[in-house]
Amino acid sequence: MTATPALDHDSFVRRHVGTDPGAQRHMLEVLGYESLDEMLRAAVPSTILLDEEALDATSVPDGITEPAALEELRALADRNIVHRSLIGLGYHGTHTPAVIQRNVLENPAWYTAYTPYQPEISQGRLEALLTFQTMVCDLTGMDVSNASTLDEATSAAEALMLARRTAKRNGNVFLVDADALPATKAVLQGRADGLGIELREVDFRTDGAPEGDYFGALIQYPGASGRIWDPRDVIAEVRSTKAVAIVAADLLSLTMLASPGSLGADVTVGTTQRFGIPLGFGGPHAGFVAVRKGLERQLPGRLVGVSRDADGHPAYRLSLQTREQHIRRDKATSSITTAQVLLAVMAAMYAVYHGPEGLTRIGRTVADRTASLADLLRRSGFELVAESFFDTLEVRATGTATDIAASLREAGFLVRVLGDDVVHLSLDETITAADLQAIAAAFAPHAPTPGQELAEVGSGAGWDGLVREDPFLRHPVFSSFRSETAMMRYLRRLSDRDFALDRGMIPLGSCTMKLNAATEMAGITWAEFNGIHPFAPTEDVTGYLDLITQLETWLTDLTGYDTVSLQPNAGSQGEFAGLLAIRAYHASRGESSRDVCLVPSSAHGTNAASAVNAGLRVVVVASDAKGNIDLDDLGQKIKDHGDELAAIMITYPSTHGVYEEEVRTVCELVHDAGGQVYVDGANLNALLQVARPGEFGGDVSHLNLHKTFCIPHGGGGPGVGPVAAKAHLAPFLPGHPEIQRESHPVAGAGEQVHGGAPVSQAPYGSPSILPITWTYIRLMGPDGLRHATASAVLAANYMARRLSESYEILYTGENGLVAHECIVDLRPFTERTGITVDDVAKRLIDYGFHAPTMSFPVAGTLMVEPTESEDLAEIDRFVEAMLMIAKEADEVLAGTWPAEDNPLVNAPHTASSIATGEWTHPYSREIAVYPGSWTAPEDDSVHDSAQMRIQSKYWPPVRRIDQAWGDRNLVPTWPLD
Amino acid sequence: MTATPALDHDSFVRRHVGTDPGAQRHMLEVLGYESLDEMLRAAVPSTILLDEEALDATSVPDGITEPAALEELRALADRNIVHRSLIGLGYHGTHTPAVIQRNVLENPAWYTAYTPYQPEISQGRLEALLTFQTMVCDLTGMDVSNASTLDEATSAAEALMLARRTAKRNGNVFLVDADALPATKAVLQGRADGLGIELREVDFRTDGAPEGDYFGALIQYPGASGRIWDPRDVIAEVRSTKAVAIVAADLLSLTMLASPGSLGADVTVGTTQRFGIPLGFGGPHAGFVAVRKGLERQLPGRLVGVSRDADGHPAYRLSLQTREQHIRRDKATSSITTAQVLLAVMAAMYAVYHGPEGLTRIGRTVADRTASLADLLRRSGFELVAESFFDTLEVRATGTATDIAASLREAGFLVRVLGDDVVHLSLDETITAADLQAIAAAFAPHAPTPGQELAEVGSGAGWDGLVREDPFLRHPVFSSFRSETAMMRYLRRLSDRDFALDRGMIPLGSCTMKLNAATEMAGITWAEFNGIHPFAPTEDVTGYLDLITQLETWLTDLTGYDTVSLQPNAGSQGEFAGLLAIRAYHASRGESSRDVCLVPSSAHGTNAASAVNAGLRVVVVASDAKGNIDLDDLGQKIKDHGDELAAIMITYPSTHGVYEEEVRTVCELVHDAGGQVYVDGANLNALLQVARPGEFGGDVSHLNLHKTFCIPHGGGGPGVGPVAAKAHLAPFLPGHPEIQRESHPVAGAGEQVHGGAPVSQAPYGSPSILPITWTYIRLMGPDGLRHATASAVLAANYMARRLSESYEILYTGENGLVAHECIVDLRPFTERTGITVDDVAKRLIDYGFHAPTMSFPVAGTLMVEPTESEDLAEIDRFVEAMLMIAKEADEVLAGTWPAEDNPLVNAPHTASSIATGEWTHPYSREIAVYPGSWTAPEDDSVHDSAQMRIQSKYWPPVRRIDQAWGDRNLVPTWPLD
Repeated sequence: MTATPALDHDSFVRRHVGTDPGAQRHMLEVLGYESLDEMLRAAVPSTILLDEEALDATSVPDGITEPAALEELRALADRNIVHRSLIGLGYHGTHTPAVIQRNVLENPAWYTAYTPYQPEISQGRLEALLTFQTMVCDLTGMDVSNASTLDEATSAAEALMLARRTAKRNGNVFLVDADALPATKAVLQGRADGLGIELREVDFRTDGAPEGDYFGALIQYPGASGRIWDPRDVIAEVRSTKAVAIVAADLLSLTMLASPGSLGADVTVGTTQRFGIPLGFGGPHAGFVAVRKGLERQLPGRLVGVSRDADGHPAYRLSLQTREQHIRRDKATSSITTAQVLLAVMAAMYAVYHGPEGLTRIGRTVADRTASLADLLRRSGFELVAESFFDTLEVRATGTATDIAASLREAGFLVRVLGDDVVHLSLDETITAADLQAIAAAFAPHAPTPGQELAEVGSGAGWDGLVREDPFLRHPVFSSFRSETAMMRYLRRLSDRDFALDRGMIPLGSCTMKLNAATEMAGITWAEFNGIHPFAPTEDVTGYLDLITQLETWLTDLTGYDTVSLQPNAGSQGEFAGLLAIRAYHASRGESSRDVCLVPSSAHGTNAASAVNAGLRVVVVASDAKGNIDLDDLGQKIKDHGDELAAIMITYPSTHGVYEEEVRTVCELVHDAGGQVYVDGANLNALLQVARPGEFGGDVSHLNLHKTFCIPHGGGGPGVGPVAAKAHLAPFLPGHPEIQRESHPVAGAGEQVHGGAPVSQAPYGSPSILPITWTYIRLMGPDGLRHATASAVLAANYMARRLSESYEILYTGENGLVAHECIVDLRPFTERTGITVDDVAKRLIDYGFHAPTMSFPVAGTLMVEPTESEDLAEIDRFVEAMLMIAKEADEVLAGTWPAEDNPLVNAPHTASSIATGEWTHPYSREIAVYPGSWTAPEDDSVHDSAQMRIQSKYWPPVRRIDQAWGDRNLVPTWPLD
Repeated sequence: MTATPALDHDSFVRRHVGTDPGAQRHMLEVLGYESLDEMLRAAVPSTILLDEEALDATSVPDGITEPAALEELRALADRNIVHRSLIGLGYHGTHTPAVIQRNVLENPAWYTAYTPYQPEISQGRLEALLTFQTMVCDLTGMDVSNASTLDEATSAAEALMLARRTAKRNGNVFLVDADALPATKAVLQGRADGLGIELREVDFRTDGAPEGDYFGALIQYPGASGRIWDPRDVIAEVRSTKAVAIVAADLLSLTMLASPGSLGADVTVGTTQRFGIPLGFGGPHAGFVAVRKGLERQLPGRLVGVSRDADGHPAYRLSLQTREQHIRRDKATSSITTAQVLLAVMAAMYAVYHGPEGLTRIGRTVADRTASLADLLRRSGFELVAESFFDTLEVRATGTATDIAASLREAGFLVRVLGDDVVHLSLDETITAADLQAIAAAFAPHAPTPGQELAEVGSGAGWDGLVREDPFLRHPVFSSFRSETAMMRYLRRLSDRDFALDRGMIPLGSCTMKLNAATEMAGITWAEFNGIHPFAPTEDVTGYLDLITQLETWLTDLTGYDTVSLQPNAGSQGEFAGLLAIRAYHASRGESSRDVCLVPSSAHGTNAASAVNAGLRVVVVASDAKGNIDLDDLGQKIKDHGDELAAIMITYPSTHGVYEEEVRTVCELVHDAGGQVYVDGANLNALLQVARPGEFGGDVSHLNLHKTFCIPHGGGGPGVGPVAAKAHLAPFLPGHPEIQRESHPVAGAGEQVHGGAPVSQAPYGSPSILPITWTYIRLMGPDGLRHATASAVLAANYMARRLSESYEILYTGENGLVAHECIVDLRPFTERTGITVDDVAKRLIDYGFHAPTMSFPVAGTLMVEPTESEDLAEIDRFVEAMLMIAKEADEVLAGTWPAEDNPLVNAPHTASSIATGEWTHPYSREIAVYPGSWTAPEDDSVHDSAQMRIQSKYWPPVRRIDQAWGDRNLVPTWPLD
């Protein structure tokens, strides 16, 4: 298998890889290699480079054409059965407004965007997220909401940790409502176990808050059973003990019910899934954590706030980033990688589309229909477990519950049967009057008192003191875009302000912004994938399960591990799951005392944070002058910690973008000392079909399907972070109480149960986006994937070589080569010219580019990763921009432009800044906004690319944003003035 | 039924109509009416206004929600059976590249655009059309191609007319190849009949060109039978007689075969359907007419050319518009309304995506597979009708042809059986090697010599002298965007240059640019609608046929006619079909001498052109001072022409945008004289559920589903122009030799055969977009449609009232009201200030608007139609822009700015014009590009709409385009330099 396969003209590889054979020949020539294979042999240590035989040993089938792959995917989809779900338990049917589906979910301007770390070119999604936060705050009665979390259960887990950090009392106990969602309880249990916290279940409704030493309590409102009761007293009691009172609330019910804030809660968690986000067999959707004022600096996740730009105009940005892992590392209060921006945008736009009166209408209709059904069932002789409810009923049907469920299934509806005697069902906005009749009719044959008819009954029984009175969504954004035309234009205006992959390269080191192909995206909006409840019965989801099993097998083969869990719905969750597995493995061997986790100084901040979450102590290992792990220091640290050594976490290629030569040695040293090796899979794009972490020493890795495997970044989520492990860790990978298929393939060992605690609310995490990755692998095949990896490495090295004309490349490997990314060291440049990393990054916007990764992993540097999907023209344009910026800095150095007034420090330049007021700068407007030769109006020939680009220039909507001001003056919701 | 129905919150009407009840109350107040009903009673003559009883008499069902409508549509779709088609005959399976489907066909930035009459804000689609023209010219070997026509058959008809206009000899005979597509022959026959031309069928291959007096000849290449033969001699012979030699060619075959241009053809016609445009049960797709140099001024359809803008930069525009109907009326050589821009863009992008080598690969694969199949069939003992072919075989299978077809159907493939003894089949790019095996296997049981195996055989047998040698698609546009990333960005850059409905209002009088809702668009990309061949057997298309029958019935009811044909695939075709029906009706009564068609002076130019095409003589009727038909002059003309009177063509409301009081009288006068009344349905948006043309006197109308019924304009096509008629005309509406259901519902008369000649290549025209209209009517219901009409009339009157502050409104009806549009008379304004209609239109671009209709129907005016879908905020913004422009003109008048250098005459202003070079104008850059208060950076509050709009300003890519220069220097293809 060569890295330069012969490609059919209709091969997808040709569409995915940006550089064609001619371009690659040129690039190889610049680098001095004859072929991709020769380059790989020079870049990758021979100790890990896969040989022909190893490459051939794969279950990944040969790539096929796009229509053929879609046909296979369609066949899988057709084996799923889409019943209407009344299962509830945190997942409800919803109508995604068509205008939102088409213009957000199916629009690359939204889904190919990156996390808004460059706020000047992310104003559209930041505004949408501010709307999300406002929506959550308004409905929950909280003051500050984050900009989304992964799901309700992990939000609860984040709230638990928030409580532990902030409670004004000690104690090791966290109380959880007996009527909390079962999945929430399970995820909390896993998180508590990791941290050595005791989780205690309490029936708050009957027993109130107990005496004793607890730091927090979570109350489900309404309960999982559907029951509504007034939690005011319990909340007050919890708070009176200085513990943190957390409410897990259903957002739609809050259109009708008193908000948790008005009931006294400190924190509210929940999900926005039923706000227009498809069921998707469990995800992705957007959860939230919202807090009362005073807790905002402890808030997990991202937080959007309003600041101002250099011209004093309002501008949005991520606030309080100092909470985050890349800065606080193991002391972080926020896991930055755990957001679901695309889904949060959809939920926010659902609220914009419906407005307060629309949401109220939906909430009331659901409640009224539930009340009507309850009334009928009562009259029909059934007993209800609870008499006060919003959308969920538990119906006692002694001995007939299973029969009733069968009748409902026959009628097209899925419910849950508790024991043999209770039918649990939830209504949602998709249930029409006709559906209600059909549901009632399915109960009828089993009714103790037959012959009753459905009658319209209003909701509200038993809601005394809990009827919502305070208004919500009063900001004009929730009433300005109600026609479809207005909504479509608002969505376009927002997305036009953002720079995504559909405009140009986003060369983000460690983030791998590659093509998200339209064919890969096709499946995710098929009803057979997105219309299914996560707890649907196995017989309804055999297509899904087979897709998942195939994907597990392929990923296992590609990584060299033995088994994979697709459950973690973000990289951070995958890391957490992997580390929990290591701890559990040690414990299973009687070595619970192993709790030290070695982390190289170059590691991603998330590594340290995850280790802490998993109850490990972080010990840092030094890097040598070349950025590699210092083997001497490693030996010393292993010696220092002896039997306490649990694991080492390494990234490969390193976060410095280099294939370290000694990786096998590192792994062996740790193994010899009884430790486990965790290989962070963030940089797998440099390894696929070139080397396999499970083969060169890893025991466990998480992967990032949103990096290497083409799930789009969605502006900062969704992601999927599967965890892959060797067989000995399989029993400790995440399980789930509701999982449809308990056993997973384990290479060489048939199938085995993953028996660890769940890390996601849904058994398979975010399965509705797995078709993206499945399709990618199916299209590429093993040799296509190898070609992609080689092409990514080629692009990075070509770029490094060309940039080295004006910049220093910080780290390289043995032959002067980098892996799939390179670090441009601006520190000498900054020292010489005074121009900072920030200035270069913002100036790149004027040139029409998204900045590379800034100051990670080394402050004062830019880390560039072109990926395999960019073509040579775009790569060369980026290089030219960087070289021109260097020349501009030289002009500053030469005194042509003053240090405090030049195109670099003033970047980015908006259109309004050149059009309005006086132009007082010592450089021209043209230099300000059309600096690149390809953006300047030079050549008049038809279809001249310069002319084309000037006509399509990306205009940043705001100038440079004042970060500090925004943190000092936190505005986390739309102000009402 | 009131015009202000109580609307459920989830009613689609609320999403379609932009003005909500509060806004409508305000607007009515401005106009001085209490309610929409009161306004309608004041605006619409009581003689035609429908009463309650009439409104209730409709088969249109009550509106339902979007999910419910999609469920019904899905049920219809599921009743279609998608077999793979090998039927061929001008329609072939093709793969639409996913990147094109998602980013063009499913992207409102492309499909909601208008015809590029404002070229400065249409550069993206103009560039795509230039690419289309280049692609057609390169492949056909012609010099100039139009920018698309409706389909191959109507292209042939246009070529026939071109030949008649240009042939250097007289004669009344047109020769058509015996091996031409049957549908082409049928459409040519209808067109010839209309014009009194004799169509003579000739077997050119065996007989050569005959002696005698003919002005043109059409040769099919390859033939409908698949046969390839060398037509050089025939072409030379035809040309030697000074007749015009037309070749109808298969575009894909031209990647392998010598181009018609190289064979000597004057004209080439064909379709681009198999270049990525779905079968769609027949359409829409994009045809073409291409000519050799010297014939360009006779070219039918639109023609894009390169010109230059005010800064001298290259810019695209529609060339040689003087050929067109709105200027030349009955002497027009071009029917401007007969283009398929969206489909032409898709076909062009298919060529960009595949490039020359990709297209060649596709062509060669199809040819090789066909050759392999032919080889097998020969070896199996079958005889082929022709031994030289590209993709089509006719296989003699005496007595077994039907059985073979059944076996193929069993295997999933449709073929055509000729007589009982010949199987006709065509391969295409979707046929894989496995499919080929399956096809071969289906023949096997019927083979005279069984047991033969498929073997790979190269194509080319019998192509001697016809193998293509000249290169094609050499311009860089066909090799620059080959990766999906590059293609996606190119599509975005192109669309970003255009202004479509997703950016703002397009208030085009007579064009009705209303919402094209995402739910309405959903069905058109379902395989059950777009994967079906137009000649598929009835049992495969019952869902389609039922949808069509429902739609026919609904449209019949809504218009007050008795029957509808959905076949015409453009308004112009509907007109032509309606006029042919009138002629045939007179002839059937022995009154063939009736050939005078009265046309009011205010009529749309298409009216006169269509009348001429239908063989009628046009006589103009004067308008009175108020713009209404002059009844005296009408009486006189009727008297003058007596028994020669065939018909009158009127538009209602008139093209002046007024409900004429005397419409019933006009109709009666014509009827009394034995004439028929043709009501142009262009303005039906002012009538739906308010008045019915079939009820107040019309005998026949065409409708524009792309105006009133929500089919998007697609940048200038597709359209659908059904013809609706009273029962006596039903037998003369278009039929089709291949139609699946010959009978159509006729109100009060059960079902009847439409027996006229076809006007489209496919039996149902462009059926794959009919789900859009079906869904719109299903969503709205009768009262929703009435509310939409009333809201459109309200918006137009509100706008007229507000604009009258600074402008004169040209025509109004009895109570000072207009209908759904109003004419802003700029002539006094121009006389006073020197600022022209053009200046105002271009200045509106700086304000962020598309100009209204310019100088139609009255030179020196703007005709404005806001439609019901715009909200009050957008309407007010437009009004403010117009009022501010009036103030700007006053400044010119006052001498503040010179007449030759002011923001109006210099409009539009590009970003580059304010950024580069010196600013020498007497007004500021800010005034140039941010003139509107809502575009100026005034208010710093968060989510201030001014701030939002400045951040989302639409930047025109070029300055004002020099129209004359472009016509003088015609550049109709990408230059290769």
